[in-house]
Amino acid sequence: MTDLIDQLRAIVGAPHVLTEGDLTAYEQDWRKRERGKALAVVRPASAQQVADVVKACAAAGSSLVPQGGNTGLAVGSIPDASGTQVLLSLQRMNAVRDIDAANLTMTVEAGCILQTLQETAEKAGFLFPLSLAAEGSCTIGGNLATNAGGTQVVRYGNTRDLCLGLEVVTPQGEIWEGTSGLRKDNTGYDLRDLLIGSEGTLGVITAATMKLYPMPVARLTAWAALPSLDHAVTLLGLAHKHLGAGLTGFEVMGQFALSLVGKHMPQLRVPFLGDASAPYCALLEISDNESEEHARARFESLLETAFEDGCVTDAVVAENLTQAHQLWHIRESIPLAQAEEGLNIKHDISIAVSRIPAFVAETDALLRSEIPGVRLVNFGHLGDGNLHYNVQAPAEGDAKAFLRDEEERVNTLVYDAVEKFGGSFSAEHGVGELKVHKLEKHKSPVAMGMMRAIKRGLDPQNIMNPGRVLRVEEAS
Amino acid sequence: MTDLIDQLRAIVGAPHVLTEGDLTAYEQDWRKRERGKALAVVRPASAQQVADVVKACAAAGSSLVPQGGNTGLAVGSIPDASGTQVLLSLQRMNAVRDIDAANLTMTVEAGCILQTLQETAEKAGFLFPLSLAAEGSCTIGGNLATNAGGTQVVRYGNTRDLCLGLEVVTPQGEIWEGTSGLRKDNTGYDLRDLLIGSEGTLGVITAATMKLYPMPVARLTAWAALPSLDHAVTLLGLAHKHLGAGLTGFEVMGQFALSLVGKHMPQLRVPFLGDASAPYCALLEISDNESEEHARARFESLLETAFEDGCVTDAVVAENLTQAHQLWHIRESIPLAQAEEGLNIKHDISIAVSRIPAFVAETDALLRSEIPGVRLVNFGHLGDGNLHYNVQAPAEGDAKAFLRDEEERVNTLVYDAVEKFGGSFSAEHGVGELKVHKLEKHKSPVAMGMMRAIKRGLDPQNIMNPGRVLRVEEAS
Repeated sequence: MTDLIDQLRAIVGAPHVLTEGDLTAYEQDWRKRERGKALAVVRPASAQQVADVVKACAAAGSSLVPQGGNTGLAVGSIPDASGTQVLLSLQRMNAVRDIDAANLTMTVEAGCILQTLQETAEKAGFLFPLSLAAEGSCTIGGNLATNAGGTQVVRYGNTRDLCLGLEVVTPQGEIWEGTSGLRKDNTGYDLRDLLIGSEGTLGVITAATMKLYPMPVARLTAWAALPSLDHAVTLLGLAHKHLGAGLTGFEVMGQFALSLVGKHMPQLRVPFLGDASAPYCALLEISDNESEEHARARFESLLETAFEDGCVTDAVVAENLTQAHQLWHIRESIPLAQAEEGLNIKHDISIAVSRIPAFVAETDALLRSEIPGVRLVNFGHLGDGNLHYNVQAPAEGDAKAFLRDEEERVNTLVYDAVEKFGGSFSAEHGVGELKVHKLEKHKSPVAMGMMRAIKRGLDPQNIMNPGRVLRVEEAS
Repeated sequence: MTDLIDQLRAIVGAPHVLTEGDLTAYEQDWRKRERGKALAVVRPASAQQVADVVKACAAAGSSLVPQGGNTGLAVGSIPDASGTQVLLSLQRMNAVRDIDAANLTMTVEAGCILQTLQETAEKAGFLFPLSLAAEGSCTIGGNLATNAGGTQVVRYGNTRDLCLGLEVVTPQGEIWEGTSGLRKDNTGYDLRDLLIGSEGTLGVITAATMKLYPMPVARLTAWAALPSLDHAVTLLGLAHKHLGAGLTGFEVMGQFALSLVGKHMPQLRVPFLGDASAPYCALLEISDNESEEHARARFESLLETAFEDGCVTDAVVAENLTQAHQLWHIRESIPLAQAEEGLNIKHDISIAVSRIPAFVAETDALLRSEIPGVRLVNFGHLGDGNLHYNVQAPAEGDAKAFLRDEEERVNTLVYDAVEKFGGSFSAEHGVGELKVHKLEKHKSPVAMGMMRAIKRGLDPQNIMNPGRVLRVEEAS
């Protein structure tokens, strides 16, 4: 292994091969659930260096774990405990290579921070719409590797939908230069989308060409009180019809989730908090290419129809940007409020929008009857059918003991219900190491067989992030 | 082989195994360039029957060619000349399985005609935006297998972007049930997008869940006279900025292309025909969720800015739907007018929008100097960077001899220029059999290696549409 480390030093320069000191930032996962031990942390500065590192590792039989901002939620970007894996940090590859205004594209290296992309686009007069909680730390390479979602998916799609081309280093250490910026290209298999979401198991994404959008002239936010989750689905349909592509956000929050914000962040004014006639609230965002007046008129027309229809009982529209940020801030504070309340079990599920009310009613009832006292924190991106259907330990009693004794049972109840409703147990967080067994349990065996065949075909040595997403040796 | 035919009869019923009579519709390609000979045409009625057919063929070592409406332009869906391949027609699988209004999805079988999808969506109050010339005959399975483009891509994307899930029969005859209708699902590799655009070489698409969109309240069409192709790119940028997602069509046409329409379809009134100050015209479409008045005001505001900016010298906005259809009809008549004029060489290329004017200037000049008298028919979906950059034989002389002597040289000149500009030699028509050699020449060897590894992994027996898209035996 000393040989390999010497080779790595020769490739990227000795200061960029870390083997000593505090490597916690590279070796511990974001949620501090697990900690691994790398043979070395290697920080290449170019695709060629990445290629050379991969070749050296392949020759030495060492596996690699690619890492961006290390903000993933499924333990997919830290080394295992063996001390034999090379942690490949893409952070130094953080150049914006090109902005092509007429083509509405931006080509960036994998280590660019998401917020840098947003700001770079804005300076050039455009919108880069990907937006999520970790945007100040996560990298676009990580976003691509995990196909990150976020709050604007209802209009702009997931990270996959925002990408036109990739530069990739294969498990053989070859460079595939595919950052074309083409909106149409039917020359063979869709390698781009296969690499996106593969969590570093099929190759290393080193750069990408991403779509830009015209910057909206106005964005407005509203908060609506809803008599039920069924009414939320009706409101979503009305919003699609009235606003078309102007609808850029649609979040839903249950009263218990909001009550945690009210309790732990008393400085935040939560509209309709505790209103028994509004078990759910929705946050809607409209973006407009015309004017703020026009956006406001469109919003008011939608809400009027929704009142008449009975799917909204009350609503506020933010008067200015500050108020809009405050409303979004309430929504974004739910995870923190949950943490303040104590230990909890998180789920990141998706179901067809039409089936969400039935899923929630049935699964709420099931959990309450199976595990008395359980508290359900339900919120999420209803526009995408994506719920963070979380479970808080009962108010009385030992939360730590609850998690120890009940987490597996809760997960089984929830994920079995998700499968019954034709949903996904990982909507936007990916599989990583955390959900490998869930994938084996819930994914179609036919799909698993195809995935294993692809992994074996592209990475026969199994050196790219082995054991994450899927285990090749499990094949029948 | 008699055994296999007996088995096929047992699976789908004897009347649905065709071995005699006129099989031209199944055995000849749409452009009548090639004709093959099938062992049998098999018409299954369900995914299970498809699976059983594939298993029987795999056991017998017979390869299969899946076929939808057989309207492909790259010879990808007819049998080869060997008389040993099974032609698998999906036409009988034409049920609309489900419309889920709240989820904005529609699940359909592969053999559904595209126009049926459009009409079914419209009856339910929604838009299914995929639209292309062959929509009365092509099937959604074929659209998916080739990732068809069309005229609405600037807003809604290619077929891939319109699909949420697939039902697929694998080369092993297993059924992967993936018609989930989920907008977010990060549980493993993106098998859906890998199958889309694989032209029947990785499996058989038997059903799909497609996205629906709110039906726009108004659609308006304008026709603008442009001083140059550079100005067309500027106008496109202005249209994106002013209209946002309201821009649903942006086509560009050179005067020579229009002159052919004027000459061969004199009943069509082509705006700005022969206007020397307008070497190019653009067709713009706006869709609006508010009202026709609003759409018209937005359009006029855009055109006013464009006049001031100098990128448009004159324009007409259709007064009603009839006029709008007439403008689209002119655009759609170019291929027929070209055929009336005589033999020609077609290209379906894409380039980053920003580089199109330079590409056209350079390649026009090159072709004119290399092949005196050549006539350039340039039109296409500028909004997607997709040109049908076609070459008409010189006005004088024998067009047949011209094609025989010059087609290969013209193609080489054009495709080499496309490669130089970082473009694609097949934007929306795919590879099929026709462009296998082009793919080998122009695609990155690294990408070719990945594609071959995937093909070998998923179809080790090489029974699914072998020789189309790529030849596995060519691997290094």
